[in-house]
Amino acid sequence: MEKSSADDKANRSITASKHANFSEWYVQVLIKSDFIDYTSVSGCIAFRPDSYFAWERVRDYVDPRLKEDGVENVYFPSLIPEHLLQKEKDHVEGFTPEVAWVTQTGNSKLDERLAVRPTSEAIMYESLSKWIRSWRDLPMRLNQWNSVVRWEFKHPTPFLRTREFLWNEGHSAFATKEEEEAEMMRIMNIYGQALKDTMAIFGVLGRKTQSEKFAGAVDSFSFEHFMPDGKGVQGPAFHMDEQLFSKAFDISFTRKDEKKDYVYQNTYAISTREFGVMVATHSDDKGLVMPPNIARFQVVIVPIYNDKNRQEVLSYAAEFKKMLDGKARVILDDRDEYSPGWKFNEWELKGTPVRVEIGGREAAENVLTVYTRYNSSKEKVEIRDFVDKIKDRLEGIQQAMYQNSKSFMLSRIKRCTSIEELGRLVEGGFMAQAPWCGSADCEKSIKDKTGAKATNMPFEAQSEAEGKKCVYCGKDAAHIVNFARSH
Amino acid sequence: MEKSSADDKANRSITASKHANFSEWYVQVLIKSDFIDYTSVSGCIAFRPDSYFAWERVRDYVDPRLKEDGVENVYFPSLIPEHLLQKEKDHVEGFTPEVAWVTQTGNSKLDERLAVRPTSEAIMYESLSKWIRSWRDLPMRLNQWNSVVRWEFKHPTPFLRTREFLWNEGHSAFATKEEEEAEMMRIMNIYGQALKDTMAIFGVLGRKTQSEKFAGAVDSFSFEHFMPDGKGVQGPAFHMDEQLFSKAFDISFTRKDEKKDYVYQNTYAISTREFGVMVATHSDDKGLVMPPNIARFQVVIVPIYNDKNRQEVLSYAAEFKKMLDGKARVILDDRDEYSPGWKFNEWELKGTPVRVEIGGREAAENVLTVYTRYNSSKEKVEIRDFVDKIKDRLEGIQQAMYQNSKSFMLSRIKRCTSIEELGRLVEGGFMAQAPWCGSADCEKSIKDKTGAKATNMPFEAQSEAEGKKCVYCGKDAAHIVNFARSH
Repeated sequence: MEKSSADDKANRSITASKHANFSEWYVQVLIKSDFIDYTSVSGCIAFRPDSYFAWERVRDYVDPRLKEDGVENVYFPSLIPEHLLQKEKDHVEGFTPEVAWVTQTGNSKLDERLAVRPTSEAIMYESLSKWIRSWRDLPMRLNQWNSVVRWEFKHPTPFLRTREFLWNEGHSAFATKEEEEAEMMRIMNIYGQALKDTMAIFGVLGRKTQSEKFAGAVDSFSFEHFMPDGKGVQGPAFHMDEQLFSKAFDISFTRKDEKKDYVYQNTYAISTREFGVMVATHSDDKGLVMPPNIARFQVVIVPIYNDKNRQEVLSYAAEFKKMLDGKARVILDDRDEYSPGWKFNEWELKGTPVRVEIGGREAAENVLTVYTRYNSSKEKVEIRDFVDKIKDRLEGIQQAMYQNSKSFMLSRIKRCTSIEELGRLVEGGFMAQAPWCGSADCEKSIKDKTGAKATNMPFEAQSEAEGKKCVYCGKDAAHIVNFARSH
Repeated sequence: MEKSSADDKANRSITASKHANFSEWYVQVLIKSDFIDYTSVSGCIAFRPDSYFAWERVRDYVDPRLKEDGVENVYFPSLIPEHLLQKEKDHVEGFTPEVAWVTQTGNSKLDERLAVRPTSEAIMYESLSKWIRSWRDLPMRLNQWNSVVRWEFKHPTPFLRTREFLWNEGHSAFATKEEEEAEMMRIMNIYGQALKDTMAIFGVLGRKTQSEKFAGAVDSFSFEHFMPDGKGVQGPAFHMDEQLFSKAFDISFTRKDEKKDYVYQNTYAISTREFGVMVATHSDDKGLVMPPNIARFQVVIVPIYNDKNRQEVLSYAAEFKKMLDGKARVILDDRDEYSPGWKFNEWELKGTPVRVEIGGREAAENVLTVYTRYNSSKEKVEIRDFVDKIKDRLEGIQQAMYQNSKSFMLSRIKRCTSIEELGRLVEGGFMAQAPWCGSADCEKSIKDKTGAKATNMPFEAQSEAEGKKCVYCGKDAAHIVNFARSH
């Protein structure tokens, strides 16, 4: 591999436009900002420090909230014997085409193939059938933070479609259907808050159609996102499996009344796929735009000096950094070998939320020049004021970015009542909200005609189905669905 | 699989003796306490909530200390193309016999086999060769918390020899050998503290012999443990690779003086193998004994009541729990369906550090009966005193357990000067400390004759080599080595 010199960093500026060439822009932003890199494993990326730091922030936000709700973390093997995967029919059909199979160990051929974990139902539920015997053992609410491999054969896209991604997978077992159902809103609330407070992205909460539900679930629920390129992306999801898996894996228990029953189960996940939505939503032609709550550095200090005042400015900048330490994640870019302009570009490329410029004049006047990445605003701020209010400033940016994401998505959802209108909306880069009768045939016809699939049936819109007619067949509508082309 | 009733938990008491049948006892302690379970993947275990909780505590202890030292976390693919593994000769020879190979994805055969990550040098260093170009990019100190698969064909033992385990893998690249060397003591200090403050186990720090170093390293360093069954176990390790990998993977950079050079590299790891040492060291014939700092629950409250005073005792116990919340991880075992005696056994089996018994008399007198798991002591403590000093009490237990581990190991290290004596010591369940000339032939002969291998060369003993003769050949000694049979 040819190495270029260290000073070719200028070549890293983004050369594709988000508006004109979204796909090329998206990849350039991720790679040139050092957020991730490709690897020689096709479809698998390396999470560099900034992206893994961000993922740790998501995990550290979600994990204690799950624990507070009674969930316990566990770790199961990453390799799953083929016969276990085959126990639940829909599940095996959904996942087998994408499984990476271990067939040899050392120099020996295995008697049975082992799947590299595409999801852990099969391996976990065999254990649950041993661990759960009585109502006393319930509920059992387990969770794993791990990676999964799904060897998709479509064109891979970093985060949005990778062959390995990071996620949490929650797996709950309850004695009753009521408890199973009650968990859904609690978990989806945690995920919804996490989207807002970590990645600053909005999603529409609703139920999936039967055609689009998880392989092995009775009912699936999701947050659905909408991307600037006019396509939908499924966000965090929650699946009610009822007794499908518990019957397939014999996860039975003795009830208080001494009768035998099967447990009711849920699963749920949030994954690094979300980073694709975050980057696409907030970033621009200058590079990444990171939400403050998950940015590796929230504030970068760029000192501006000449040969005469170098020492004075640098020590003033170092003093200033000390004032911020503990209040924000702050870095002082005091590298002599780069110019201030070069540094501005560098930190804009990386999406650092706030840049503070400090020169001789700023030092003398106790005033800072503050640049805000997400809206490119520049202002003069009195130093004491900046330090005292840094947390508010960062939180303000976080919330404003979230509002931008929300306004964008809501502005792209348009109602329609005919299939022609639906087609035009989807073609025009919108999400089409339409009444639907509930028939899988209509759903399939809509997809065949327009390329749009049912993302989900938004909770908040369902009351409007009454009296409406299905956008395809004209019969009475049972649901309101958001249709979109998707990643 | 036959299911037994929920009330057969009494059958869970340990039926093997640590002293008489260590191997059987060890497995019973782990399984019956619900710490882990076997899975249908041979050699792979399920980390149940208590063990994974403990591992999170280890990670949460080590991780911020590494970050404080300048290390950044990343995530690389879990699948590694075969051609990358082959780049470094010793490395490939060391790992290939134990690799789990992915050869098929979906229904397709892969052109090149992919190794399920046995360690990440190969996949990471290909990226480093792109990312590192200049002295400005150095040092680059990366770390991953992940799982690795090594398909060992020896008899698997939970934690001590499993085909998948959890660890951190640190990978550092420096511009100079001096920086590379300076990292060793800093990292090993962090690991040493972690052993003490999390798992309460002692290890002897030293350098590995050339025969026992890591596959691909120039020099390895380790903590070495000694188990109650008279065998050694390698603990956290640190490897100096110097320029071996950087030359194999072309990780070169332009120095300040404009010359090209290769980076100097280190790797280091702490793994769930340590849990095997912890359990073997501290546990007893009643079950697990957990160090307070990583126990899921540090205090269990067992209320003792009859039909008459049930409500009074339970509400007193609940009040007491509230006083402890926030100061310790505490659980009130208020299950009506089990007797106090049954509960005592249950929590002793699980190794909960402190048990508090509260009955009508305790409630009346404001005095608690406190049982300490690790030394089976029982005492009466005034309630206010117990609550005020709970942190000290737990820390006292942690330190006492560590001292026990240290005293045990030090008492089992015996010096010797002849090969016959060395053989007798090893046979008698000791670690034999002996002078050694440094020749690999002598090392091999000692192993052939006694079954003992060189664990490491303890730093603190090296000054004593001067004037001594090699325990095998009688030539001048260059090192002092701790020899032991090992797991």
